Parts: sequence; structure tokens; C-alpha cells
Amino acid sequence: MTEIGIGIIGGGYMGKAHAVAHAAVGAVFDTALRPRLEMVAASSPASAARYAKSFGFARAADSWQALVADPRVDAVVIASPPETHLEITRAAVAAGKPVFCEKPLGASIADGEAMVAAVDGAGIVNMIGFNYIRTPASQFARRLIAEGTIGEITWFRGEHVEDFYADPALPATWRATGDANGALGDLAPHMINAALALAGPIRTVMAEIETVHPTRGGDPVGNDDQAQMMCRFENGAMGHMFFSRVATGRKMGYIYEINGTKGAIRFNQEDQNSLWLYEASGPEATRGFRQILTGPAHPDYLPFCQGPGHGTGYQDQIIIEARDFLQAIHEGRSLWPAFRDGLAVSRVAEAARRSQAEGRWQSAQPH
Amino acid sequence: MTEIGIGIIGGGYMGKAHAVAHAAVGAVFDTALRPRLEMVAASSPASAARYAKSFGFARAADSWQALVADPRVDAVVIASPPETHLEITRAAVAAGKPVFCEKPLGASIADGEAMVAAVDGAGIVNMIGFNYIRTPASQFARRLIAEGTIGEITWFRGEHVEDFYADPALPATWRATGDANGALGDLAPHMINAALALAGPIRTVMAEIETVHPTRGGDPVGNDDQAQMMCRFENGAMGHMFFSRVATGRKMGYIYEINGTKGAIRFNQEDQNSLWLYEASGPEATRGFRQILTGPAHPDYLPFCQGPGHGTGYQDQIIIEARDFLQAIHEGRSLWPAFRDGLAVSRVAEAARRSQAEGRWQSAQPH
Amino acid sequence: MTEIGIGIIGGGYMGKAHAVAHAAVGAVFDTALRPRLEMVAASSPASAARYAKSFGFARAADSWQALVADPRVDAVVIASPPETHLEITRAAVAAGKPVFCEKPLGASIADGEAMVAAVDGAGIVNMIGFNYIRTPASQFARRLIAEGTIGEITWFRGEHVEDFYADPALPATWRATGDANGALGDLAPHMINAALALAGPIRTVMAEIETVHPTRGGDPVGNDDQAQMMCRFENGAMGHMFFSRVATGRKMGYIYEINGTKGAIRFNQEDQNSLWLYEASGPEATRGFRQILTGPAHPDYLPFCQGPGHGTGYQDQIIIEARDFLQAIHEGRSLWPAFRDGLAVSRVAEAARRSQAEGRWQSAQPH
Amino acid sequence: MTEIGIGIIGGGYMGKAHAVAHAAVGAVFDTALRPRLEMVAASSPASAARYAKSFGFARAADSWQALVADPRVDAVVIASPPETHLEITRAAVAAGKPVFCEKPLGASIADGEAMVAAVDGAGIVNMIGFNYIRTPASQFARRLIAEGTIGEITWFRGEHVEDFYADPALPATWRATGDANGALGDLAPHMINAALALAGPIRTVMAEIETVHPTRGGDPVGNDDQAQMMCRFENGAMGHMFFSRVATGRKMGYIYEINGTKGAIRFNQEDQNSLWLYEASGPEATRGFRQILTGPAHPDYLPFCQGPGHGTGYQDQIIIEARDFLQAIHEGRSLWPAFRDGLAVSRVAEAARRSQAEGRWQSAQPH
Ligand SMILES: NC(=O)C1=CN([C@@H]2O[C@H](COP(=O)(O)OP(=O)(O)OC[C@H]3O[C@@H](n4cnc5c(N)ncnc54)[C@H](O)[C@@H]3O)[C@@H](O)[C@H]2O)C=CC1
Ligand SMILES: NC(=O)C1=CN([C@@H]2O[C@H](COP(=O)(O)OP(=O)(O)OC[C@H]3O[C@@H](n4cnc5c(N)ncnc54)[C@H](O)[C@@H]3O)[C@@H](O)[C@H]2O)C=CC1
Ligand SMILES: NC(=O)C1=CN([C@@H]2O[C@H](COP(=O)(O)OP(=O)(O)OC[C@H]3O[C@@H](n4cnc5c(N)ncnc54)[C@H](O)[C@@H]3O)[C@@H](O)[C@H]2O)C=CC1
Ligand SMILES: NC(=O)C1=CN([C@@H]2O[C@H](COP(=O)(O)OP(=O)(O)OC[C@H]3O[C@@H](n4cnc5c(N)ncnc54)[C@H](O)[C@@H]3O)[C@@H](O)[C@H]2O)C=CC1
Repeated sequence: MTEIGIGIIGGGYMGKAHAVAHAAVGAVFDTALRPRLEMVAASSPASAARYAKSFGFARAADSWQALVADPRVDAVVIASPPETHLEITRAAVAAGKPVFCEKPLGASIADGEAMVAAVDGAGIVNMIGFNYIRTPASQFARRLIAEGTIGEITWFRGEHVEDFYADPALPATWRATGDANGALGDLAPHMINAALALAGPIRTVMAEIETVHPTRGGDPVGNDDQAQMMCRFENGAMGHMFFSRVATGRKMGYIYEINGTKGAIRFNQEDQNSLWLYEASGPEATRGFRQILTGPAHPDYLPFCQGPGHGTGYQDQIIIEARDFLQAIHEGRSLWPAFRDGLAVSRVAEAARRSQAEGRWQSAQPH
Repeated sequence: MTEIGIGIIGGGYMGKAHAVAHAAVGAVFDTALRPRLEMVAASSPASAARYAKSFGFARAADSWQALVADPRVDAVVIASPPETHLEITRAAVAAGKPVFCEKPLGASIADGEAMVAAVDGAGIVNMIGFNYIRTPASQFARRLIAEGTIGEITWFRGEHVEDFYADPALPATWRATGDANGALGDLAPHMINAALALAGPIRTVMAEIETVHPTRGGDPVGNDDQAQMMCRFENGAMGHMFFSRVATGRKMGYIYEINGTKGAIRFNQEDQNSLWLYEASGPEATRGFRQILTGPAHPDYLPFCQGPGHGTGYQDQIIIEARDFLQAIHEGRSLWPAFRDGLAVSRVAEAARRSQAEGRWQSAQPH
Repeated sequence: MTEIGIGIIGGGYMGKAHAVAHAAVGAVFDTALRPRLEMVAASSPASAARYAKSFGFARAADSWQALVADPRVDAVVIASPPETHLEITRAAVAAGKPVFCEKPLGASIADGEAMVAAVDGAGIVNMIGFNYIRTPASQFARRLIAEGTIGEITWFRGEHVEDFYADPALPATWRATGDANGALGDLAPHMINAALALAGPIRTVMAEIETVHPTRGGDPVGNDDQAQMMCRFENGAMGHMFFSRVATGRKMGYIYEINGTKGAIRFNQEDQNSLWLYEASGPEATRGFRQILTGPAHPDYLPFCQGPGHGTGYQDQIIIEARDFLQAIHEGRSLWPAFRDGLAVSRVAEAARRSQAEGRWQSAQPH
Repeated sequence: MTEIGIGIIGGGYMGKAHAVAHAAVGAVFDTALRPRLEMVAASSPASAARYAKSFGFARAADSWQALVADPRVDAVVIASPPETHLEITRAAVAAGKPVFCEKPLGASIADGEAMVAAVDGAGIVNMIGFNYIRTPASQFARRLIAEGTIGEITWFRGEHVEDFYADPALPATWRATGDANGALGDLAPHMINAALALAGPIRTVMAEIETVHPTRGGDPVGNDDQAQMMCRFENGAMGHMFFSRVATGRKMGYIYEINGTKGAIRFNQEDQNSLWLYEASGPEATRGFRQILTGPAHPDYLPFCQGPGHGTGYQDQIIIEARDFLQAIHEGRSLWPAFRDGLAVSRVAEAARRSQAEGRWQSAQPH
């Protein structure tokens, strides 16, 4: 059991989630490396101090620069806004420290490319924060597909839909500016990553991106409320994805439906402990979608609970993520999903933007 | 109570359904006109005779021509293949008889245009068979939207997916030839009609149409297995539809999800007696999608059963349809959906074909 | 094809349902006997005349006595209140006419015993109206259990719960008087019949019966709002049933859950086209309750629709019932469920009343 | 921020869960007291050492006696078998240390009474481990009922059903001996506690308890596989509960359905992030059960995640429990549910055993 000092940049939504995860992960997974909540940085020293006290960090940093440079910080978790991801990554690389970065991979595709170049050039262990694909259910879906349970994929449909911005009366805050904060920039990466993980690389996309409410409270809105794309996977499968922050009634509609020649899979994060599987075998009269409740028979469930159907939750995904990051550091190699996987996701989103601009199908592969 | 002689052309899937409907509709709805199962025609006199005996028609016709011409046949129901729709319509028009035609409106857009011209030119009462929109649930959805319950529509998603052709080992029968028998020709019309009824006219579409299994049992397949289209409604709403006959596990996935600024609606024909409604009002803590079970409070339910939640079924939709056809004849004017509404549906499908050919968005309006 | 004259007594909820059923059944099932809606009787000649016109009967009867005696009435359907069942049955027996009687079998156990004695003594074809057990889903459940799919039954839970009388402000009408109109008398028979059909005879019961709202609108209520019973089946299985007319939110909660040593079954009439089956076989990781959508592979579905998942409804159950009644007449022997099966159901309810009175387990078998 | 040394007895299913909970709770809830994983005890020093290393405790204890006596252990968590609960409690009381005990409260009602006497006599802060009632959904259900949202309760139905012992081929291990390990002893306490919390004290019960498989692998089984009880609440409501470890297909069927005069609530732990609420208000046509997804608007959700519908899991309940235990210690007074609440639960189970023995209704109140 070797201790490792964790430094987290950001103490908001995800900064806290990673703090809790690193507090719990050792007890849950009996990890080889044991995280120590060493330091937290935020937009001001005062807020960092508050976070440190509240989450139980040993110390607060005056700035992210100080955190990255600190000798007792052995690994860096970036949970600050996308605009900060590249610069922090560069500093972590310079300091030779493993780095975990929240999605999306920087504020632009250029940022993402620079981040991949930086970590891969220097051989720095790196990971990107696509947590939803880590539920026992979605890990199991991936395994079922890989094992051929549903045959060849013929159709993939994905959604990431929420309604936190559905009310047009909500003011135009920072959420309403910057591509990285729009539906395509902020929500899409999780589901695009799921699509790539479950159905393989995407060859081409044809998209539509729109701002449903161009003004909010009198102020202009500078980014998109929803976006859709038809897509074609390299394995030939047809697909479609939809992303929305104005999907009234949907709270966490991270939904996928995958048809194959031998079966089908359905999933909705709003009921994250059920995976629906149809197998086109056995007598017609007893076929149907089966509601499989996750349990010890599924990936990464048992460490959380010995009883099936008892369920894991959002925070547990972040704990699984922390386990993988510690494992990656332990093994000295980046585990999936790494920065390069985050970049692959950004490329799909970027192809969507091109498609919207040109009204045509676009390649989603690197040029 | 006036009797009316009904002549049905076709005694297959839908011919039988209409025969049962006309046998039952008077008792269910206490209609002003009372249908008499006068005559049935089929592809041969022998099969017509079998159908007549089996369904309880007074007589069998030697041919559809004989049926249309028969003086005791007061109204004609076309439940034969799309290729026959135009010619029969013309004969019915010539004979001055009201005509009900199963979807799709003929085998091609040209057929459909000719059919509309024929009936509207002669002032013949006409109707097209979009039965699914007639469930109490979908009629109620339409009313809720019209009344503004979910506000302005921001997103429409529709599917009509089944899996009767999912198994690639199934042989290439007549189902595998002819656009009218493909997923876009055969399945799409119902959902396109729903889209138009629920969200209004469609301005433009961008589509993909594909044959998932190009051969079946060694023989070539001549039409499409699935199709998708992004669409833009005239009211500005973004939309998407998907149609498939190879959607493993789906039996009658006539599904729609409609987001609005004030609420949302979800429906799946596989559970046709539930409508899911979300209203963005009241305390956040008690909001949620409500499973409304159809009952006497919903359109056209009470005549089938006095108890809510007891449920209507497929055949009941055809009975409702028969009631409307009788009512149209009684009033001497075509009721929705008429041939022209069927043509509007066909135009959307045709725009999808153009879009597929050209790789671009296309207008779905008459040129 | 032989015609048979049907006489229906009662034109209310169930009288109409049987009228529609007999209008449609020949077309749906191509029955050997073809019903002719010959005559309807009601509480007055005037209402009978209205029903005759509305449902399409050839004639109205001045009284049920006239109907039973009429030479063109070949078979009698009793859809009038329980108090009338015995007397009408006796007349039908005297006239030597097959008789179908709506549940419950008379207004009391004594009535039921007399009815069974009458029909069985005279060898009259008879049937009792337990329609819910006739859905394709519940017929299939019965078959699965009979074939051993779920192994030995270890637990049966049934409910028949509605909320039509949940509001205490509703007045004390006829519904509030007479055991036959209470929850145990009116709602329980369907589910007790299901229990017997699915899990076999009941040996003993221990019950509680209560009037939740002793007065309504100032007037006293004379019968029960809800009742529950623990029961022990002859095969050793433990069970429980609950019946309520004040189950706020439930519209047609005819629900059963059956656990067996090898599997389990769940059903809710509110989604009557789904049967949920769990089989304890195959890898643990892919086990789950399967949502089986009814279709042509299930009993009595195909005549209503060729497509699976398209669904049957309430009225279709009555059509299936009519088919069986015609078939029974054709074969000259009572088919399940006959009057004696209705009596077996009444005996369970009666044992529940004794149990409530004595506060002890009671035998549900004939003494 | 004051540190507090936590000693946990047991490192199995629940010992680990409490270890994780105390590792995470400070970061999640910013608690006044901050737990330090000080010491763990188990059935042998060797296993205690393994648990200490695996979960991150500072030290392992040679025995629970050593742990309770250790000066750096400020509070004791009992997660060892029921037979040990009483003796450990007495030691903790003697040492003047707050004690948290897993359910059930000792191996017998006598144990439970002695435990309550011990802690209450000495004024020791104490709590019992009913975690399921702590989900945001169930806490919210409790609040809704308390606020009168569903009116007066007319019916309570509860289940705790799993299938871990459904296969009769499973051997007769320790699980098959001792009342405390049977369905009524092991599973029932959670749901009985829920019943008391949601619907109030239980006056009388009438029960059945049975061993479905009297032998397993040739060896005799010494406790019950399932049990049911009808119950009457002090507020007059009728109720029923069922407990089973042989409920094939059910993984975590902690289910309740509560009918009231104004509404109804349904919940199933297998989908722990949904609460179903029906309100008998507004137009009939839009009434229905609402699926409320838990979120920041519900109790104890926000500290786990800022997004609604993202979901909490099993482990999170234990974290909430730890927060309450720390809070109780901080305030110097036992918070609900305390030992006395555990005893109230045991009394209901004990009344069920008496009822089974005597075949009559029994009081569930202290004599
Ligand atoms: N994986 C997931 O489920 C989610 C991921 N995210 C991602 O996490 C990242 C952070 O988002 P949230 O936590 O929602 O944001 P937030 O606004 O809740 O928190 C951002 C934090 O970053 C800190 N910060 C801002 N600028 C900084 C600077 N220059 N130096 C140091 N600290 C700085 C702020 O003080 C704050 O503590 C984003 O990349 C976002 O896309 C966000 C929510 C969910
Ligand atoms: N609304 C709905 O839910 C459905 C609508 N349809 C539509 O109904 C129409 C018929 O389809 P199905 O009933 O499925 O076909 P089917 O193959 O089951 O029956 C076709 C019938 O038409 C008769 N027929 C064929 N050629 C004829 C001719 N020249 N003259 C007289 N009769 C002729 C055949 O004898 C047969 O009885 C099609 O337009 C189809 O798209 C079909 C299924 C469902
Ligand atoms: N199987 C099922 O799902 C249901 C069965 N039922 C059963 O059906 C039977 C009838 O109930 P509903 O149709 O609900 O009652 P209802 O009140 O709607 O209709 C009763 C009919 O009986 C007629 N009637 C009454 N007394 C008569 C008499 N002396 N002579 C001739 N006609 C008379 C009335 O005119 C009326 O048309 C009852 O036994 C009831 O338990 C009722 C509802 C559902
Ligand atoms: N709240 C919940 O959801 C659950 C509660 N429980 C309860 O938790 C308690 C423990 O059950 P599990 O964790 O399932 O058992 P387990 O068998 O998984 O673990 C029991 C632990 O107690 C230790 N132990 C046994 N005898 C001991 C002794 N004399 N001194 C010190 N340690 C000893 C063992 O070494 C083992 O680590 C029981 O009261 C049980 O009813 C169990 C499972 C779920």
C-alpha cells in the first residue's frame, strides 16, 4: 500500500465529486495506490481554503500553478472550466505528473490536439473523465456487444438530454456563452464517447445545431440549446444522436438503443441499474426485452455491494474512475479513456459543426 | 338508422380488420349509418368466396370491378396492395361512391396525386387509413398539444420500428421488392402522419435510406430495411424520425416523444393505453412524467368500455376509423385524414428519397 | 355456417359489451355458429327498445321472461344485476336454452348453488363471465405454469384494485348497498378466478373486510370498500389477495405475481399486452424479467391482428368469451369457466366472510 | 472540524460498507465531526488485519473487546452477526461510547430489550442501521405523507423480497439456521421499519411463516424462507407485508404501495431513484402516477450530485447513515432510528411469530 498525494483543481460540481471519490476509492477497491487528499485549488485562495476544509484536503493552494508544482502533489485532477484544461495540462506535463482531466478535452479542438500532443509526447499518464460509460450496466453492455450477443450492429441511437435550461425565463449566464458550454460542447461528449465505445469509430456525420431560445431575459444567447446528428459508423451501422439542455422533463436522459442482427440493447441513465437486453433466440412466444438489474455478476459492482439490485449511483462512477486513474499511474500507462479518446470525441463534435455550416455530410476522422 | 352496403376489396390483414370493424361499429358507436357487409373482392373469385364466408359478407365479388359497380355496394374500402389503389379509386369515383383507402396512398407519389385529383375533382367522400393516430391516447396527445399544454414544440422524435424482417435468413419475398413495401414506403406513413398531426407541416428533410441485408437467402433485396430523417417543421421545431423493419426486439414501436417549452409527451404503441405527460409546473420536487391510463375521459374510449385502464386494442382503432368513414358519408364531406392528407405524407417520404439521392436537405412541400 | 339467435338481458356496461361481441365474433373467429342479435331485454320495454336500436338487435323484449321464451332466441346472455341471475337461469333451463351469465354467479352463495344445480341437473350448456383471464397474456401465463416453466409455485399474489369509489364525497348509491356490490362481491371474483386458474384450488383463507368510508354524503354505506385475504392453495403454495374500490390511482389493477421454484410471472391488466417472465436459467448476468409483448405466438391473438405488439383490448376479451360460448353450444358441453367454476369462486369469497366474522382461518372448500 | 476515531466490528458485507461510508462522509456532507478509520475488529486478529489493510484503517484489533476499550476509538459501529450485538452494546455502554448497531437489534427480542435498557439507562447515543429508509426517494415519501399529500392512509402494502435462496439446491449454510437469519428475522426489519416510518405504529398482526424448502442438499433447514402478515395500523389503516428469500427473480424488492384518500405512493428499491406519486386532483383526463426522479429538490440528494436524475446508490444510504450518527454524537442525543426504534420493529416480528403459533391476530404493542 503506497500513498499518493492527489491535487484537485476546482471545487465545484466535479471537483467535489473527485474529492469524495479519492476519499473513498481505497476502501472500496483496495487499490495498490492509496490517495491522500493533499491539495485543492480554485479560482481564488479563499475559495480553495473553503473547499479544503469542507472536503478534507490537507491544504489549499493559492493557485493551480502552485498545486501542480507542489512536491507533495503526485497526480493532478483537472476539474476546472474547459478554458483552463490546456494550460494546466502543459504545466502537469512539465512537472512530469499524471493528469486526469474532466471532459471536454479543452475548450476547442485545437486545445484538445495540443493536450494530446503534450501528454503523449512526454509519455505522461493521462485520462479523460467520461464517467457514465463506467456504470456496471454500460460496462456490461459493452462486453455483451464485444462478445457478439446482439450480432452485427445495425442501428445506434443515443441521446444526452436534460432540461436544466428548458425554461426560457432563465437568465443568460456563463452557460449561455461559448461553444464548450452549449449542448454540443457540454452534454454531447459523454454520449459520443458511449457511441464510440459501444459501436466503434464514426466515419461521417450530418448535423443540425440550434439555439432554441436566442435571448434569455433580454440578453443574447451565444451557444446552442440542442443538436442532432445522423452518423455512419465505420462498421457500416447507421446511427443518430441528439443532445439537448431544453428537453423538458428529462433530467438525465443519457439513453442508448442499439439494434443488432441477433439482439438489441436499451439503456437510460435515469434508471442506471437496469440494462434491457433482447435476444432473438428461443421460442418466439417467450422472447422479450429483459430488464437485467445490475449486481455482483456485472463489472465493478461487487466492491460497492454484495446484493444484486441494490444499485450504484452517480458518485460511484467517479469512484470507479478514480480507481482506474490510480491503476493507470500504478501501471505507468494511460488506460482508456485517455486524452486521445477525448480528442476522438471532440472530432465528432467538430465534424458536426462543419456539417451544420455546410449542410452536408462530413468526415469525422482526422484529416 | 339507415343501412349502407359496404364493399371491401382485399381479405388479408387489413381486409379482415375492416370487415370486423364494419360488423361491430354500429353496436359500438350507434352510428347514423349502419353498415351491411355486402360484398368482398380479392385476387380471385375463390378467395373472395372464402373471405365472404369467413367474415360474414352477404356476397363475394368476382373482381374488384364487379364490386365497385355493384348497386348494393354503397361505399368502397380498399384493402388491397398499393399498386391497385389508383385504379380502384378511379372506378369508385366514376361510380360516385365514397372510398376509404388503406395507407399508403397508392404505390407512388404520382399515384397519390392522381388519386387526390380524382376524388377532389369529383367531390367524392374519401379517407385514408391512418389508424394509429386514432387511439384514445394519441387523439388526446393531439388535443393536449393543440390546447397548449406543452407550450411551443421544440423537438419531435418519431419511430415506427418492427422486427418482422430482422432475421437475415428470411427469404426475399414480395416484401423485398418495390419501394411501397420497404420501410419508408410501408411503415413510415403512419408515423409521418403522426408527426404532421401532432407537430404540424414539415418544411424540409434530410434523410438516409438503406438496405441492411442486400440479399436474403441468396436473392437480391430491392427495397429498404430502414430509413431515418432529420426534419424541420414549419413552426420551427427540429425533428427526427426513424423507420425500420429490422429493429430486433421491437414489435410495434410506433413511438413519439415531443418536447415543448412547458411540457413533454411520450408515447409507445406497444403500451397503447398509456400516455406520458410532463408538465413543467408546480413544485420541482413533485414534477415527473405522469402515466395517464386511457379511460372515459379520453377521446373515443367510452363506447368501448366504461372503466378507465381497461384498455382498447388494435382492432378498436379500425372501428373508430369505420365510424369516421360512416360519419363522413353521412355528412357528405371528407373527414381527416382524407386522401389529400395521405398525399402530404407521401410528399415527406418522397422528399426523403430525393434527399438520400442528393445528400442534401430537401423541401417536403409541393413544388 | 349455422345462425343462432342471441338474446341478451341487460343493455348496460356488460349488455352492450356482449352485443358488440356477438356482432363481431363471427368475423373475427369464423365460428361454426353465427350469432344473430335477435333480442334484448332490460328493466323496461322502453329501455330495451333503445338498446335494440342502438346496438342493432332485431327486436326488443318486453321483459326478460319474454326474451327467454322467444322461439327465435336460441341462447341467453345474462348481463343484468346479480339478484336476477338465479331466476333467469331457472327460466332458461326450463326453456332448455344455453345460458351465459355475467359474474358473480348470483347474489349469494345459495343463489350460486341453486344455479349450478339447475344447469347441471338439466344438462344445460352454461358459462360464467370471467373475461380477464382470457387475454392472450393471461391465457399464456396459464399455459406457461401448466407446462412447468416456473416450476412449483411458492407464492401467489393477486389484486383487483380500482379507485372509482375512492373519493369519500361520492354519494351512497346502489353501489354502497348489498354484499354483491361491495369490493369482495363485485371485484374479487375475477381475481379469485385467476388464482384458481393459475395456481389451483384454495384450501383455506384468512381474511379482513372493511368499509373504509362508513358514510358517504351523510348516508350509511352498507357494504365493503376493500378486503384482503391470506390463502393457502391445495398444492401448498402461500398466497395473498387484495381487492379495493378505493385504491386511489389504480384504474384496472388486476395484478398478479407468481413465484415458482424455477421462475416467476408478473402481470398487470393496466398493461394487458405485456407478460413479464423470469426464468432462473442461463448465466446470472443476463437474467431478468422479460417483457413479452403479446402477438400471434400467444393464445387467441392472431384473429385480432397479424402483428405482434399491436395489442388487444377490453372488448376483445368479450369477443373471445363469445367465441367460447358459441363453441360450447356447438359441442353441446359447457366449457371452462362454467357455472360450477363460478361457484368455486363464490366459495372462496364466502370463506373470507366467515373468516372475517370468526377471526380465524377457514376452509374454502364445500362443506 | 473535530476528528473522531471510529471503530468498526466486522469487516464483511456491512463492515466494509460502514468503512467506506466513514471514509467518504466528511467530504460529502462537510460534517462537524470528521471520522478517522481508527480500528477494525473481526472474528480473528488475522482477518481484522486484512480488513484494516484493505479498507484503510489505522489499526486492527485483536478482538471486539479490545476495540471497544481502545482509547482512540471514540465511537463503535457493530457490523457483526446479531448474536454479538448485545454483548458488544453492553461493553460500549460500559465504556461510555456512542454505538451504532446494524439491524436487527440483537438475535432475539430479549436481546433487543436488554440493548435498549442498556443504552437508554446510561444515556448513550445510539442508532440502528435501517439504511433503506434513507434514500432521497423514501425520505421524500415520508415527508409527502406527513404533509398530507395523499390524505389519510387507507392501505399499506410492503414487501422485502429477494431470491438469493430461491434455488433449492443451495446448501443449508448458517443462513439456514436461527430465526435471526430467516426471512422474518433478516429481511423483514427493513420493511417493518418502513411501515412504521411511513404509516405509523402497528396495532395488531396476523401472520404466516413458512419454510418452503425444509431440506437443502439433504440437510434440514432451521428457519423460514418466507412470511406474510396482515396488519392493522393505529391510525386505522389496513396493511399487508411479505418477506421472502425465495422470490425468484426479485433482487432487491423493497417495495411499498400506499393508498390514501387524496393520493397514492409507490416505490421499488430496484429503481431507487424513482418515486411514483398519484394525486387525485386536477382534471381526470390528466391524472396518473408521476415518476418523480430524485434530485436536488429531495432530501439528502444534493451533497451527492448537483444534477437531478443522476442517481444515488446503495453505498450512499450508508453514507447518509454515517452522517446522522456523527450528527447524533455531535448533538449528544440519539437520532431516529435509535435502538428503541429497532426494538419496535422487533416487536412486530415477534407478534408475527406468536400469531403464527396461535393462528390468531396478535397485538404488536409492548405488553
Ligand atoms: N463528468 C461529468 O459528469 C461532468 C463534468 N463536468 C466538467 O467538469 C469541469 C468543471 O465543471 P464544473 O465542476 O461543473 O464547474 P463548477 O463551476 O461547478 O466548478 C469549477 C471550479 O473550477 C474552479 N476554477 C475556475 N477557474 C479556475 C482557475 N483559473 N484556477 C483554479 N480553479 C479554477 C472554480 O473555483 C470552481 O471551483 C468542466 O470541464 C465540465 O465540463 C461538469 C459537470 C459534470
Ligand atoms: N393500417 C395498417 O395498420 C395496415 C395497413 N396495411 C395496408 O393495407 C393494404 C393491404 O395490405 P395487407 O392487408 O397487409 O395485404 P394482404 O396481402 O394481407 O392482403 C391483400 C389482399 O388484397 C387482395 N388483392 C390483391 N390484389 C387484388 C386485386 N387485384 N383485386 C382484388 N383483390 C386483390 C388479396 O387477395 C388479399 O386479400 C396495403 O395498402 C397495406 O399497406 C397493411 C397492414 C397494416
Ligand atoms: N365481466 C366484467 O368485466 C363485468 C361484469 N359485470 C357484471 O355484469 C352484470 C351487469 O352489470 P352492469 O352491466 O355493470 O350493470 P348496468 O347497471 O350497467 O346494467 C344492468 C342492465 O340490466 C338491466 N336490468 C336490470 N334489472 C333487470 C330486469 N329485472 N330485467 C331485465 N333487465 C334488467 C338494466 O336495464 C340494465 O340494462 C353484473 O352481474 C355485474 O357484476 C359488470 C361490469 C364488468
Ligand atoms: N443494513 C443492511 O443492508 C444489511 C445489514 N446486515 C446486518 O449486518 C450485520 C452483519 O452482517 P454481514 O455484514 O452481512 O455479515 P458478514 O458475515 O458479511 O460479516 C460479519 C463480520 O462480523 C465478524 N465477526 C463475526 N463474529 C465476530 C466476533 N465475535 N467478533 C468480531 N467480529 C466478528 C466477521 O469476521 C465478519 O467480518 C448483521 O446484523 C446483518 O443483519 C447485513 C446485510 C445487509
